[in-house]
Amino acid sequence: MKRKAIGIDLGGTETKIGLLNIHGDILKKKIIATNVEKGFKNVISKIGYSVLEMLKNENLTKEEILGIGIGSPGSVDRHSGTVLFSPNFPDWQYAPLTEQLEEITKIKSFVENDANAFALGEWAFGKHKRCKNIIGLTLGTGVGGGVIINDQLLVGANGFAAELGHMIVQPEGPLCGCGSHGCIESYASAPSIVRQAMEYYKKFPESYLFEKEKLSAKDIFDTARKNELVSKLVVDKITTMLAVGISNYVHIFNPEYVIIGGGVSKAGDILLNPLIEKTSRYLWPSFKDTFNIELSNLVEDAGIKGAASIVYFRNK
Amino acid sequence: MKRKAIGIDLGGTETKIGLLNIHGDILKKKIIATNVEKGFKNVISKIGYSVLEMLKNENLTKEEILGIGIGSPGSVDRHSGTVLFSPNFPDWQYAPLTEQLEEITKIKSFVENDANAFALGEWAFGKHKRCKNIIGLTLGTGVGGGVIINDQLLVGANGFAAELGHMIVQPEGPLCGCGSHGCIESYASAPSIVRQAMEYYKKFPESYLFEKEKLSAKDIFDTARKNELVSKLVVDKITTMLAVGISNYVHIFNPEYVIIGGGVSKAGDILLNPLIEKTSRYLWPSFKDTFNIELSNLVEDAGIKGAASIVYFRNK
Repeated sequence: MKRKAIGIDLGGTETKIGLLNIHGDILKKKIIATNVEKGFKNVISKIGYSVLEMLKNENLTKEEILGIGIGSPGSVDRHSGTVLFSPNFPDWQYAPLTEQLEEITKIKSFVENDANAFALGEWAFGKHKRCKNIIGLTLGTGVGGGVIINDQLLVGANGFAAELGHMIVQPEGPLCGCGSHGCIESYASAPSIVRQAMEYYKKFPESYLFEKEKLSAKDIFDTARKNELVSKLVVDKITTMLAVGISNYVHIFNPEYVIIGGGVSKAGDILLNPLIEKTSRYLWPSFKDTFNIELSNLVEDAGIKGAASIVYFRNK
Repeated sequence: MKRKAIGIDLGGTETKIGLLNIHGDILKKKIIATNVEKGFKNVISKIGYSVLEMLKNENLTKEEILGIGIGSPGSVDRHSGTVLFSPNFPDWQYAPLTEQLEEITKIKSFVENDANAFALGEWAFGKHKRCKNIIGLTLGTGVGGGVIINDQLLVGANGFAAELGHMIVQPEGPLCGCGSHGCIESYASAPSIVRQAMEYYKKFPESYLFEKEKLSAKDIFDTARKNELVSKLVVDKITTMLAVGISNYVHIFNPEYVIIGGGVSKAGDILLNPLIEKTSRYLWPSFKDTFNIELSNLVEDAGIKGAASIVYFRNK
């Protein structure tokens, strides 16, 4: 019986490939370098052959696989399986992703925006699975959003919803990769967090935060936990702007859960606690106690599980 | 046959009551003073008896009326028919609106947030009726929002969605009636428009805009049309902030139409044209040409028609 699915989490640096059952359990996992610079065709070929190798090692035939789900950054056309454009993948313009993948694997493939896949994964396999109204927010290289409304993924007229990370919350704010100023992404993505810390370098060059050669978002949360001044200022700013964003999402969608994933969410309580406290400051009385903000418990595997959930649940 | 419905547009100053057929044609209309200061019970009694009087004058029995739909500002519980709270109606807290109305009229009654009713009315009876993805924005005493996604009204987990007017787009912006700073409403509601003009009084006391004893939003658009400086500055600011808001809604929902109603929308092209131009500045390339921004053509009757559409279509 066709019960298993492949979930692929396509990232700017590495791509995770998983073999899952219908309960979302990962039976096998493999991580490969994405090598964006080699171009669209090579990236997809490498992924396709990695899938075939995994099936061979597991003694599975193609016929035992229900499908391949792939979560990709950017705007995707889920019907044709095409990536229309993706900021971090310059040559992926109208790139026929599922067509290429099916040509190599001969397995039915589906593509979805990676943050939409994350939200679907939370809905299908997360802590609050099958909760009817969920907002998923991914904080990573970019900030992505996916929204489940009444058990349905919000896709919009062209399938481009829901770009929550590009909600402008400060029109004179920092320049975002998308060309606008003051998007949530320009405060809360991993590179934006590092940029905001570096902006303090002139003022506080003596901070031990700057002793590291290459600063990461993780370093900033780690030193903030030790009460280092610059890191605390940065964490204060990003949690304030994220709280503005989350209160906006809540007033718009009236969800039951706002679930935060992506690499930045690994910061844990030092991110979550101020977010909960600050978001409540902006809320209407009627919205208080209607929802919870939580960090994803799917952790590293949220992308893979979300991608596999497309195969199982996309037509629900 | 029960084919007709009553639509009630409950406003802070006046309440419009309409008798409609299933095509959304208004067969009879009556406007009464709301008299909020007389308290919830009196307001609803007056509305109820006005409905009964209208039916009597039209020689209609209660049995010929499918239901009464009422659009109310604030957070409503559509299931129990209660207004939970409404900023401009201080004593309406957990006010049993439909229960009271049914007690007097003996006609099945439904309540919906007024901006949700507006969006439903546009979807049911507007220029682009039965378009599947519509964002309705009402610019009046407040700024309300209603969203139709795939032919369904977005209501959220508790029925409080979609407070588009309270999206914060400038956290250090003007104080909004809701207690937050820099909500869309704090720029684009009628009172906010007047407030922003008055803020220029000190700088430009000689402007003939200030010759009027009591300034209205309409005055400001009228004088902006004549190239008066202060009015032009105000119109420029509100269209910029509204454009930020609309681009946010579009990136989030990927709709086919953004339809603007409410008293302020009567300003016409001097509002619409800059909105269209400025919104496009903030959009991702993939979102361009995916939607149109338009002013409602239901004009004065949008509220009544929206309220009646609840009776006909709320369970769809």
